[in-house]
Amino acid sequence: MRIAAVEQNGHSFLAGYDEEFDVYVDLEIGENGDLRKWLEETVNGKALLIERWQDYAESRHQFKTHAAENVKVLPPVKREGQNIICIGKNYADHAAEMGAQNAPEAPLVFTKSSSSLIADGETVELDESFTKALDYEGEIAVVIGKAGRRISKENASDHVFGYTLFNDITARDVQKRHQQFFLGKSGDTYGPIGPYVTVGPSSQPSDWTLETYVNGEKRQSGSMSDLIFDIAELIEQLSRGMTLRPGDVIATGTPAGVGSGFNPPKYLKDGDAVDVHVEAIGTLSNKVKKV
Amino acid sequence: MRIAAVEQNGHSFLAGYDEEFDVYVDLEIGENGDLRKWLEETVNGKALLIERWQDYAESRHQFKTHAAENVKVLPPVKREGQNIICIGKNYADHAAEMGAQNAPEAPLVFTKSSSSLIADGETVELDESFTKALDYEGEIAVVIGKAGRRISKENASDHVFGYTLFNDITARDVQKRHQQFFLGKSGDTYGPIGPYVTVGPSSQPSDWTLETYVNGEKRQSGSMSDLIFDIAELIEQLSRGMTLRPGDVIATGTPAGVGSGFNPPKYLKDGDAVDVHVEAIGTLSNKVKKV
Repeated sequence: MRIAAVEQNGHSFLAGYDEEFDVYVDLEIGENGDLRKWLEETVNGKALLIERWQDYAESRHQFKTHAAENVKVLPPVKREGQNIICIGKNYADHAAEMGAQNAPEAPLVFTKSSSSLIADGETVELDESFTKALDYEGEIAVVIGKAGRRISKENASDHVFGYTLFNDITARDVQKRHQQFFLGKSGDTYGPIGPYVTVGPSSQPSDWTLETYVNGEKRQSGSMSDLIFDIAELIEQLSRGMTLRPGDVIATGTPAGVGSGFNPPKYLKDGDAVDVHVEAIGTLSNKVKKV
Repeated sequence: MRIAAVEQNGHSFLAGYDEEFDVYVDLEIGENGDLRKWLEETVNGKALLIERWQDYAESRHQFKTHAAENVKVLPPVKREGQNIICIGKNYADHAAEMGAQNAPEAPLVFTKSSSSLIADGETVELDESFTKALDYEGEIAVVIGKAGRRISKENASDHVFGYTLFNDITARDVQKRHQQFFLGKSGDTYGPIGPYVTVGPSSQPSDWTLETYVNGEKRQSGSMSDLIFDIAELIEQLSRGMTLRPGDVIATGTPAGVGSGFNPPKYLKDGDAVDVHVEAIGTLSNKVKKV
């Protein structure tokens, strides 16, 4: 099941994506397509969103559908209201390419501003007055569905709503100059996310391979089984002191192959197309444009 | 002029604080006391909030007032929807006590989760299963009133709505273990803020002295004129790549005298009372409670 926020004729709503027919199904849930407001809603003990999708599977004719080409996909989470929590150096090969002597003993946890979020298909801005070293980082992101604090590894999956793709666009020079990562990670358009949230994927995250392509050239390929801190471990550690909230996003880290890992570096240029792909989740595609 | 979000009988609203009579004035602005929604509202070219306060000054009997003892003060910004941006090592004496050889060449910028925010008078939790080194950091915080990107130093003050007080509560051991600051700074209750936002203070920030007291003992005393990066400079640097949004909070850094700066360290204990005070802004008071 794939949930997207979409817009048509100025009206935004939550939709299920039906891959078979390449259509978005209006799930008739309002509130301007704000996923966060609906994550904890239940009907007969089942999540409302999942219930609606099952209704659609049973009686398709009762739902309005829209051909994919006729809707604009929005970021599945809004540009406000939740934390975009990112994990640094969570693949050993990436930690090494960034110059780390050893894998970190505890996760590096930082945030991106939610104002950086853009949808699948939107444009990443290359502003050379801000950065001379714009880089990509393909990632798998977890969307939290149920609030919790002191969540144990064993219960972590109860708090996961689904999975989406994320491109943790980074101004390397800014990231380095300011030491803490936030500013170099939070430029406007630096948070491509989507295209949808995949709920109940057909395989386990540990079986997934994450791939990032730049202009069709494979730059990153990482197995989720190589994560230093896996999803359950991250949820346990993140929630030890802080309540995780519905709609919070945890970007789980990027594997080796970012632009700055090459010698000479392969930073993003005007017109570059970046695709982040996981078979069980989908493909997130964005182009870079000099502004 | 001082703007607070307050609650009475389960109803929350935005209020002006009238120091002369120690009353909160209902400014008759709805929306659950969400300051963020009203920052950019104008009437006759003037900010709505300021207009309402001036109406009150002219004809007090037309407004409902509530004795301070009868209302509960809430955080002036909500627990969701904005960035709580913090600046590390922005006073040279504090940078030195934290072991930095030199003052940073560029501001250290990190965030706290907005889920950490608590109001004046609320309790900071000491959870010894999470931290053995709970610390205070008294700070002056700027509340952004007008959205902007690429804001110049010269225009920075146009984007400031007002000033409030902030206590950047920190689990030092967690901050250190995870390298990036977010997690050690974002525990639930780690963001005391308020009690109100002071608009158009009677003096210039550069004339202000920030003081932090623990159980009445003065621990921190810093002059805003000693900031390595002043407010205008911070707004210019923060907005170079990222749009600052109404309701975003910039905590400007803490002077020397935090608990971990003492030998042996003076970390927060059960029952400790922490007061952050600036003459022109007010006093933020919170107690620590072991949970």
